[in-house]
Amino acid sequence: MTKLQLALDFTDLDEAISIAEEASPYVDWIEAGTPLIKAEGLYCIGELKRLFPDKTIVADMKTMDTGGLEATLAAEAGADITTVLGAADLSTIKGAIKEAHKRETDVIVDLLNVPKSKWAEIDSLDPDYICIHVGIDQQKSGMDPIKLINDLNVKSKKIIAGGINTISAEAAAKAGFDVIIVGSAITKAKDPQSAAKAIKEAILRAEQ
Amino acid sequence: MTKLQLALDFTDLDEAISIAEEASPYVDWIEAGTPLIKAEGLYCIGELKRLFPDKTIVADMKTMDTGGLEATLAAEAGADITTVLGAADLSTIKGAIKEAHKRETDVIVDLLNVPKSKWAEIDSLDPDYICIHVGIDQQKSGMDPIKLINDLNVKSKKIIAGGINTISAEAAAKAGFDVIIVGSAITKAKDPQSAAKAIKEAILRAEQ
Repeated sequence: MTKLQLALDFTDLDEAISIAEEASPYVDWIEAGTPLIKAEGLYCIGELKRLFPDKTIVADMKTMDTGGLEATLAAEAGADITTVLGAADLSTIKGAIKEAHKRETDVIVDLLNVPKSKWAEIDSLDPDYICIHVGIDQQKSGMDPIKLINDLNVKSKKIIAGGINTISAEAAAKAGFDVIIVGSAITKAKDPQSAAKAIKEAILRAEQ
Repeated sequence: MTKLQLALDFTDLDEAISIAEEASPYVDWIEAGTPLIKAEGLYCIGELKRLFPDKTIVADMKTMDTGGLEATLAAEAGADITTVLGAADLSTIKGAIKEAHKRETDVIVDLLNVPKSKWAEIDSLDPDYICIHVGIDQQKSGMDPIKLINDLNVKSKKIIAGGINTISAEAAAKAGFDVIIVGSAITKAKDPQSAAKAIKEAILRAEQ
């Protein structure tokens, strides 16, 4: 079953928690966004785990160096999953996977701004998940991860992120993605709970 | 005059402050390392600025997305300079430069794991500084930024980082680098103050 991950790209923890509470009946995974981690520190991970003990908590560390150390920090803070950048040196990705797995946590490699020519090599490192991702800055110039939906031929589990809405969530679920990350379509909606419900329903519809 | 930047790659602020206090008579810039920012949050930037008001405080944000937002967060937290990854989309680098400059702060673009073929394009965006950088994970496989010392032909000011010690600091100063970043050669020294002094003297010697 395709999972719905809520990306909390806030810089204030209280605001993030308030939206997470509204959306939580309809999301499977909850992500502490990179700006939230940098703004509030790893404390925010533990708080999310404490408040949402039944959800999988993702720490979007976007690790670029010291892969082992950052995966350890995320796990010790309470994260179930951490992220490492595909743009990082392979040694960094390997280090993150090794230390995360020691702590029975998982790793997502984020393909943000990584050329397709490198995707197979990253997949060969056996991360738990690989994420095609069009960044928030890239979205402003019209880039859309749905255009890449058929390009991600990997043996790792597949995640998609970057401006996903109800329509693209359904398309991604149909295309067999394991996890669909949604941020602003929920967090900036007038009614975040209804938005999360609509996206969850679109995913379930795709799977029928 | 070549400046000496102390990289505080700790995960505990008190430990970082204690080393910074020892080394401070001999360093010009003090950097909150990426793991420190993620572990402690942006609060650590303000603390470093409060404790070392005469030093230039660098927030090693290693921004990969939301360039404008993260440069703003760093500046508002008290940083004089923020870092953005050269591996990021050009729109992210541009956003960081634009918002940092609005707040009268500077930007370092970090060339960690960026192919040389992209360096000129990054330089054309007119960041304040460009940093050749061999990561901590990469150093374990014998990579050394000194080997790249003559490859960084840019109009931006030049910084070097990655396992720099007294000998390589002197070589980098002779090669005309504007800033030399030193981490473990000071922070893991038995006597951090003496280590900082020796490196500062090596830099001054190179400039005579």
